[in-house]
Amino acid sequence: MVKILRINTRERTFTLEEAGDYAGLGGRALTSRIVNREVPADCHPLSAENKLIFAPGVLTGTKASSSGRISVGAKSPLTGGIKESNSGGVVSRKLAKLNLAAIVLEDKPERDAPFMVVRVDKDGVTIEDAPAVGKGNYEYAKELDAKYGGSATCALIGPAGEQCLKSSTIQFTDMEGRPARSAGRGGMGAVMGSKRVKAVIVDDSGAGNVEYSDPDAFTKASKRWAEIIREHAITSQALPTYGTAVLVNIINEAGALPTKNFREGRFDRAADVSGEKLHEIIEARGGKTREGCHVGCAIQCSQQYLDEKGEYVTSGFEYETLWAMGPNTTISDMDDIARLDRACDDMGLDTIEMGNTIAMAMEGGLIPWGDGPAALKLIEAVGEYGYLGKLVGNGTTYMADAYGVDRIPVVKNQALPAYDPRAVKGIGVTYSTTPQGADHTAGYAVCQNVLSCGGDVDPHSKEGQVELSKTLQIATNAVDSAGFCLFVAFAVLDTEDALQVIADMVAAKAGVNFTPDDIMALGKQVLDDEVDFNRRAGFSEVDDQLPRFFRKQLPPHNVTWDFEYQEMQAVKA
Amino acid sequence: MVKILRINTRERTFTLEEAGDYAGLGGRALTSRIVNREVPADCHPLSAENKLIFAPGVLTGTKASSSGRISVGAKSPLTGGIKESNSGGVVSRKLAKLNLAAIVLEDKPERDAPFMVVRVDKDGVTIEDAPAVGKGNYEYAKELDAKYGGSATCALIGPAGEQCLKSSTIQFTDMEGRPARSAGRGGMGAVMGSKRVKAVIVDDSGAGNVEYSDPDAFTKASKRWAEIIREHAITSQALPTYGTAVLVNIINEAGALPTKNFREGRFDRAADVSGEKLHEIIEARGGKTREGCHVGCAIQCSQQYLDEKGEYVTSGFEYETLWAMGPNTTISDMDDIARLDRACDDMGLDTIEMGNTIAMAMEGGLIPWGDGPAALKLIEAVGEYGYLGKLVGNGTTYMADAYGVDRIPVVKNQALPAYDPRAVKGIGVTYSTTPQGADHTAGYAVCQNVLSCGGDVDPHSKEGQVELSKTLQIATNAVDSAGFCLFVAFAVLDTEDALQVIADMVAAKAGVNFTPDDIMALGKQVLDDEVDFNRRAGFSEVDDQLPRFFRKQLPPHNVTWDFEYQEMQAVKA
Repeated sequence: MVKILRINTRERTFTLEEAGDYAGLGGRALTSRIVNREVPADCHPLSAENKLIFAPGVLTGTKASSSGRISVGAKSPLTGGIKESNSGGVVSRKLAKLNLAAIVLEDKPERDAPFMVVRVDKDGVTIEDAPAVGKGNYEYAKELDAKYGGSATCALIGPAGEQCLKSSTIQFTDMEGRPARSAGRGGMGAVMGSKRVKAVIVDDSGAGNVEYSDPDAFTKASKRWAEIIREHAITSQALPTYGTAVLVNIINEAGALPTKNFREGRFDRAADVSGEKLHEIIEARGGKTREGCHVGCAIQCSQQYLDEKGEYVTSGFEYETLWAMGPNTTISDMDDIARLDRACDDMGLDTIEMGNTIAMAMEGGLIPWGDGPAALKLIEAVGEYGYLGKLVGNGTTYMADAYGVDRIPVVKNQALPAYDPRAVKGIGVTYSTTPQGADHTAGYAVCQNVLSCGGDVDPHSKEGQVELSKTLQIATNAVDSAGFCLFVAFAVLDTEDALQVIADMVAAKAGVNFTPDDIMALGKQVLDDEVDFNRRAGFSEVDDQLPRFFRKQLPPHNVTWDFEYQEMQAVKA
Repeated sequence: MVKILRINTRERTFTLEEAGDYAGLGGRALTSRIVNREVPADCHPLSAENKLIFAPGVLTGTKASSSGRISVGAKSPLTGGIKESNSGGVVSRKLAKLNLAAIVLEDKPERDAPFMVVRVDKDGVTIEDAPAVGKGNYEYAKELDAKYGGSATCALIGPAGEQCLKSSTIQFTDMEGRPARSAGRGGMGAVMGSKRVKAVIVDDSGAGNVEYSDPDAFTKASKRWAEIIREHAITSQALPTYGTAVLVNIINEAGALPTKNFREGRFDRAADVSGEKLHEIIEARGGKTREGCHVGCAIQCSQQYLDEKGEYVTSGFEYETLWAMGPNTTISDMDDIARLDRACDDMGLDTIEMGNTIAMAMEGGLIPWGDGPAALKLIEAVGEYGYLGKLVGNGTTYMADAYGVDRIPVVKNQALPAYDPRAVKGIGVTYSTTPQGADHTAGYAVCQNVLSCGGDVDPHSKEGQVELSKTLQIATNAVDSAGFCLFVAFAVLDTEDALQVIADMVAAKAGVNFTPDDIMALGKQVLDDEVDFNRRAGFSEVDDQLPRFFRKQLPPHNVTWDFEYQEMQAVKA
């Protein structure tokens, strides 16, 4: 029977509880339910009343391909609303093997209390003072590995999280022990920092495998599941070969690649920061073009990027990061962008928020447009614990406010990702309406708007976008609750029996009846939890809209954003 | 016929319009109506779509005592809602004498365009590049006086406004040409800065007196009005003798003087920062204990505070400032606090917001509690145009966010003034519900809760507070629309014929029927405008509440804040 581990960070005590009302929930369904039930919606996100929840999906730890993601939930310091931030890494699978549905960090110590390391294994929990803090995640992860090593992997915060800055990530170690996987969005690292938890180390030594109610049925369904992923062109060819960066040329071609803080939809140097170019550089330098972010990933869209001397720089080098640090700031040197990605992982900062923050610094005249080394200094300033680091680490609006910039691409204070909503209106509806703040993963309408995956919906027309976004948001909630990588959606959308196969796996694992309808009902329940929390936190319908500058034309297609918030409320109905 | 002067700050052009739909409105009624009608509620406050409005009251420029205040309106960069910020100074009366109901600054130039000076006189408007900026208001006002002098007085922004920081004031010169009067709250200086207007100079040379429809009736009513103010103990004795600082001992005695960021209701060194002490110091050093903030003020609650060498430091040294910089930060040296007040006027910063910001810096460990010189360095940093100044000038929440502080006394992102809402519940209802964000002047229930003025309502009980706050908010809107100083309310509340006398003055001035009922209807109309704008700007009912830490007990009376936002919505009904 899976349990919920609650840790009181003030007392440094823990309790192991039955799942009770939360039984059967995993991943995002569990984090959002706990946040909505237990966290006062009007509390300060850094107060003792907020809770930080780590939850593997219901299928995490099983043989199901690409099911090893983790959900991190809390009230967000960035948005002030509910947050589920999702990551790869190895912690999730180990939690599942330890039969933990969730770890919940509660309460908080005094602000000057020493940081702590929480270590979880099959015998229980130990909490002790953390080794000296104040260094980057790469160095710190090595120190933790030297001390706790072996089967231990961790979730940790960097200098940004230690300072409780609003763009702080929680980094998860990957299969090689590098802190390169991020629960990036919404400042979850700040919540962890406010609780003075530097790292959560999970060691599954001696733990058995997860249990199946019907092992044979699970094996059968999971084999079909592996086929489904293997047979789709995006998950089997495009993503493994070029990584998510395959999108650079595609989105640029579509006229939807936001350039220079969303001024244009095409970047004249897009080829320099494309997936194809990335692949070429990695191959030339002897890096790895394919790598999974977690054990059991069938897609392998990650990589290892090396510098000119052949030394490791970064991995998990995503399209979103390439765009945020590249076209969005007009930086076009791949090595500069790779160093920015590395620096963000090292400081524990969200790359999407940071790319937009850098753009604000450029708008405000703090650094010149397109200046990669200057941008790197901004990110590294977070590790200096001074005033400039505060301006950077608190994100897009905060930096904009420092320099009186009024062109701020955020929804619910979270910065927009790599698709201009004027040219991909379905994703604009998602940005506007998801309780998460501007978030492409919350309802990835780029599939139907641009990629002709799961249908075709004209990206420039308003028609059908609200219904599309709603369906995708609900489905995504279910994907995040299962522990799947979102990229399975490409294959699921185009494969008739995919939902049934997922339902069969859940049923065979848990010993319950579970149908495709139940999947969507679960996803809707998550949406309802998140909408309810946000309403009680003070969000109104008016908050479901893009900044007014999106009403101006975007070249080259000269499209505008023409949705009113009232037209999009059906998403939440 | 009064006109509205509109200035396009991008084109540097102007138009002089008939009042049209706005005819008969003045002060806050006019600024809030224009904002609600003309400014898109979802625009960025620093964008070209925001407008900055200066409006004298409908009785400003007349013989009515204490009627020379000015309303400044815009969408607030601090709160994101509608804002009316009110000030003394000499500009208001001169605008009235020039027959201007309002100056409206529209559009905005490029962000690196030179700052401009707008000069208004009876012959029209001239707009020219401002003298070199980047210096404090005291020095700059002298330069302007040397250049434009004589009958010219001005509204100007300091280094904070130039940087568009969210606590920026607009300072108004007083009768001695000192920029010591502030439209302090809500960042109006940032809006002016975004429009690249450094100063608005108003010269009434050659203008006639304001016209009266029935001069004799006005003279009769205004004489009675002068008597009413002269006969009330607060307006004729307490305020002229001790200034608003008379409240320090009174509110401390009531257990409602917020101490060390709202931890206690009494300050053990309150006597050191009291009105009595202030009076003693000023007298001993040969300063002025009485001074009006505008021509025709019958109350004279201002003063001139000198340093130990007998040199002028500051004036308009208010209770709110003494509290914000004093008990709230545990600084208790009167000279330190006076220098902080001077520095805020010089930088163009709101003293209430800055006192709370300093408290956040102390909470966060940036400077020690009670350290006056360290606090002064923070304020002065705004004039250095560096990173620290951004953290300071953007106000309470911004500073708190830099250091992960979760005890932030704000409503709608505006910092609380000098009355703990747990011990003066009527003012707590005002803080919570006024569209202005936490603002004591919006409905000053301290009168009935503590001062036994205009009735008696138990400050610790919930009973009657919502009705009280509503009545006061509506009445205040009317006071602010007439151009009266809010302090006339003390006398009005205790004098049976006062409302009738005010109505008579309006009627005699404008040649319209006007009754006490019309006064309240006008006030309600203003509230409706402001509530409507905020709703369209994204505020929900949930935003009408105090931070959760006010639910904890406040010594010495161990009272808590126990209103739910739902219970207070009747204010806006």
